[in-house]
Amino acid sequence: MTSRDGYLWTPDQGLKAGIPCIGRIQPPTKLNGPSPCVYDVIVVGAGYCGLTVLRDISLAGLRVLLLEGRDRIGGRSWSSNIDGYPFEMGGTWIHWGQAHVWREIMRYQMQDKIEISMDFSSGVNQYLQASPKGTQRFSHEEEYAIMDSGLQKLFNIDGQWGKRVMPFPHSASFTREALAYDRMSVADRIRNIEDSLTLNERRGIEAWVLVCSGGTLETVSFLEVLHWWALSGYSYEGCIEYLAKYKFKDGQSSFAMHFFQEALATNNLDYVFDCPVVSVKDTGNTATVTARDGQKFEGKRIVSTIPLNVLNSVVFDPPLRKGKKRAADTGHVNQIVKVHAEVSNKDLRSYTGISYPHNPLYIAFGDGTTQAANTHIVSFGGQHLHFHPEEDIPVTIKALQGLVPMDIETLVFHNWSKDEFARGAWFFPGPRLLSDHLFDMRAREGNIYFANSDWALGWRSFIDGAIEEGTRTALVLRNDLMNSLMLDSKLT
Amino acid sequence: MTSRDGYLWTPDQGLKAGIPCIGRIQPPTKLNGPSPCVYDVIVVGAGYCGLTVLRDISLAGLRVLLLEGRDRIGGRSWSSNIDGYPFEMGGTWIHWGQAHVWREIMRYQMQDKIEISMDFSSGVNQYLQASPKGTQRFSHEEEYAIMDSGLQKLFNIDGQWGKRVMPFPHSASFTREALAYDRMSVADRIRNIEDSLTLNERRGIEAWVLVCSGGTLETVSFLEVLHWWALSGYSYEGCIEYLAKYKFKDGQSSFAMHFFQEALATNNLDYVFDCPVVSVKDTGNTATVTARDGQKFEGKRIVSTIPLNVLNSVVFDPPLRKGKKRAADTGHVNQIVKVHAEVSNKDLRSYTGISYPHNPLYIAFGDGTTQAANTHIVSFGGQHLHFHPEEDIPVTIKALQGLVPMDIETLVFHNWSKDEFARGAWFFPGPRLLSDHLFDMRAREGNIYFANSDWALGWRSFIDGAIEEGTRTALVLRNDLMNSLMLDSKLT
Repeated sequence: MTSRDGYLWTPDQGLKAGIPCIGRIQPPTKLNGPSPCVYDVIVVGAGYCGLTVLRDISLAGLRVLLLEGRDRIGGRSWSSNIDGYPFEMGGTWIHWGQAHVWREIMRYQMQDKIEISMDFSSGVNQYLQASPKGTQRFSHEEEYAIMDSGLQKLFNIDGQWGKRVMPFPHSASFTREALAYDRMSVADRIRNIEDSLTLNERRGIEAWVLVCSGGTLETVSFLEVLHWWALSGYSYEGCIEYLAKYKFKDGQSSFAMHFFQEALATNNLDYVFDCPVVSVKDTGNTATVTARDGQKFEGKRIVSTIPLNVLNSVVFDPPLRKGKKRAADTGHVNQIVKVHAEVSNKDLRSYTGISYPHNPLYIAFGDGTTQAANTHIVSFGGQHLHFHPEEDIPVTIKALQGLVPMDIETLVFHNWSKDEFARGAWFFPGPRLLSDHLFDMRAREGNIYFANSDWALGWRSFIDGAIEEGTRTALVLRNDLMNSLMLDSKLT
Repeated sequence: MTSRDGYLWTPDQGLKAGIPCIGRIQPPTKLNGPSPCVYDVIVVGAGYCGLTVLRDISLAGLRVLLLEGRDRIGGRSWSSNIDGYPFEMGGTWIHWGQAHVWREIMRYQMQDKIEISMDFSSGVNQYLQASPKGTQRFSHEEEYAIMDSGLQKLFNIDGQWGKRVMPFPHSASFTREALAYDRMSVADRIRNIEDSLTLNERRGIEAWVLVCSGGTLETVSFLEVLHWWALSGYSYEGCIEYLAKYKFKDGQSSFAMHFFQEALATNNLDYVFDCPVVSVKDTGNTATVTARDGQKFEGKRIVSTIPLNVLNSVVFDPPLRKGKKRAADTGHVNQIVKVHAEVSNKDLRSYTGISYPHNPLYIAFGDGTTQAANTHIVSFGGQHLHFHPEEDIPVTIKALQGLVPMDIETLVFHNWSKDEFARGAWFFPGPRLLSDHLFDMRAREGNIYFANSDWALGWRSFIDGAIEEGTRTALVLRNDLMNSLMLDSKLT
């Protein structure tokens, strides 16, 4: 099946909007169950967080309605199988040290459906560092040494590689020192250490921060980059392991479908896809969600999994608390551009490279081999030299060629910046957003719960964080509804 | 409340069997619910695996009966709060990279209830290596260097620190090379590398293997030690992080109680403690469990969480499949001896040490500070020079003094070797047990499921593995029962 989302370009066919997705749900509406006037829970959004909530809640025997603006599950994380090869449109890599996602992978017995992105066994087997002055070639061992040394300088703020400042990376009880780093941008931090960095280290770590954050050095909180480092085991070795190494053999929509299908099997789930929400009105006893087409749905509780950058697109009545509103007004800074290229150059399978600071795509590497035995290159740009790949394909191709010369057969991408349900990619905060508003973003308001990877505690911004938030919310919500049921039965 | 389990010794009071446990359940029986003739599921055993099964299954609306031989929950993992300080009787350390346990910790919002075992900020701050020739003193940095170097020699079997041989540590699809290492004991492996080891490295890594396994060098499979190494991120740094650093501030029974209480709140759980099971008879439609006191209980499905080393204490009818029976006949080798000492020597808070190969307790370190401002030393022995601490307290004290001189105020321990429901501590296999019987141990037989950390895929032998197994089993079981319900309704 084909989703409206995403773009495919080939030299012969040109640009086409909409690409295959096994997470496309058809027909888009199921309201067949014993139709209640009032659902126990209405979940808005079918990303991993929403999927986790609706699965856990429907398993617990409560009646759930899912409303989703898109035609597919997965939200900002989905894969498109094109000619038998899965391209990851947003979100890709997972690791068994990410508790929530790995627990689900093992629960669904998918632990043998994982593969390794990179393959340095043949081909160019080099790290190419392109800069305005030309391209330097390094072995991957040299690449490792440059990055390891550079990142240690960036993060060794306490003589313990950050462990003293951030000893528990899943805690929101930040140390005072940690909070100070939230007032600092990465640009500020780099200014403090720039005398100690070689030029190659500096280019390497700056490009690395940009690809982690999708922001610019000036717009990104140093605390959150440090958080990623801490989560990754306080080492570059860990960053490789956790951030860009292991992925789903069959694409991650194969994983997301398990959640949806498990929930469906309970017979407690109704859903409406293609159903963007415009307002949520909390009347005290229940809450009403109004869709763009005017349909209204009533639930005892609502779970909004709407991402921070589009929270303002929905009208809440009563209005959101000030802190949450301010967080939504500020938003996060991640405007990642992720472009997949299928190329005929087999030797690029073992390529990694950066092209910085002059090129709109600044990091890329060989990520797989397609059924046609071509190489799959995944490349990233972002807020720094931001562009929209579909608007000018020659510009996009030039940005790819600016990384390494390649013979392109196919381009695949999703423009997250223009996506009306995302307005950006995974959450990445500017300075002060977390210190000022993390608890605001997480706070329940009346009958409305707010759950999203954007404000998870651990692997915030990751699939793992989405499942963390869904898991937390489902448990609290179930206890809340059970208590209110008990209260009801005492009152009657 | 006080459990029958465990021992406490003080100079004044002498030896006392039975120590406090918040996981003691009183009254021991709850059969008050709407009493079915046939439970949906009977869970035998209230360790973490059984607790996870009964929680997930009762949440799904099925009627569950728990039968437990002990007077408390937790199985081989429980804590005793003595004078306001939690001593961990079996199982202690957890890490956020252990997916199943960490998912539950965050789900119960306990992520800020974790603390760090070691504290090197003051006191002796040394690593003492005692051998028959006397004691050498090292800084902790020197300790790290010895262990790091020694373990790299032990595990760098492929030039990639084991990553090529065991690329996916949660997979049971072992590579051929990995299987070869299951035919090798640790003694075999050390013979292969002994020329490259310094004497200090050799003592360090041998004592380390003994404390991981509770076996002897000759009785332990090298594959499983390699598995621990792979799970710990293929580094000594990772081994420190994962294996002995982070623990529950309030003791882990505070964690286990969440599972039990959540299940209880569903009103779908009945239980009988102090109720050892002697036989399980599968009649095809249902199965009957008989307790030592003659009581019989009937369930559509049984989940046996009985550990491998005591599986033969229960009569199964029909008998267990040959491979499972053979695995139970073989058993695992872990006969760990874990002795806690509360000592008045404040300077030992920062002590770590080994005393090997001559001393019955061969590894110890400062693990906390009690309410009385004494130091808590945790020490380990095992199959190598095995002894029973309660049988001769002076011998036990001598073994502690053989590590480092200390002024003992209290001893606390649980003799796992004599425990009729365990006959050993956490699972550790001899050569070939995993290759020959891992799938046998995991296999369902008729209406009986077998779930235990002993045969988990990932963190086998850990709390994490117990929850992994409970999670897997609950999902498969629920689908099984739902399908059979659907079948029933089609047939009638």
